[in-house]
Amino acid sequence: MTKAIFYHAGCPVCVSAETDLLSLIPSNEVAIVHLGSEPQKIKEAAHAGVQSVPALVLANGNVLHINFGASIEDLK
Amino acid sequence: MTKAIFYHAGCPVCVSAETDLLSLIPSNEVAIVHLGSEPQKIKEAAHAGVQSVPALVLANGNVLHINFGASIEDLK
Repeated sequence: MTKAIFYHAGCPVCVSAETDLLSLIPSNEVAIVHLGSEPQKIKEAAHAGVQSVPALVLANGNVLHINFGASIEDLK
Repeated sequence: MTKAIFYHAGCPVCVSAETDLLSLIPSNEVAIVHLGSEPQKIKEAAHAGVQSVPALVLANGNVLHINFGASIEDLK
């Protein structure tokens, strides 16, 4: 794997945070996979070690699981 | 706040993953705060909404809590 892969499933609360994170990472450094739209890639993600989404699988195989600390305001 | 702040505390399991993540983000886009070395910034981090480390506080105020899914190998 030559670049990072960002797996997500369109979580509505997290979408703006995810967009912000990806805005920090140059687009040629990361591929984006929407598991809701591409369910055939769930097996690949699980094999890479993804246990929850959103998650960022790094080029060296490390997996970062990202939790957006949703504010009460977002949940109202 | 004009750029993101990455808060961490030197978690040994996570260090390589954190380094990898930061290697994806241009250094002028993110400030790094080690709360173990700079405990006076813990209050600032808590005020920003950081509940655990590592965490990335984005320029718009969103907080991403990052969990490295530690492998069994790392824990041996």
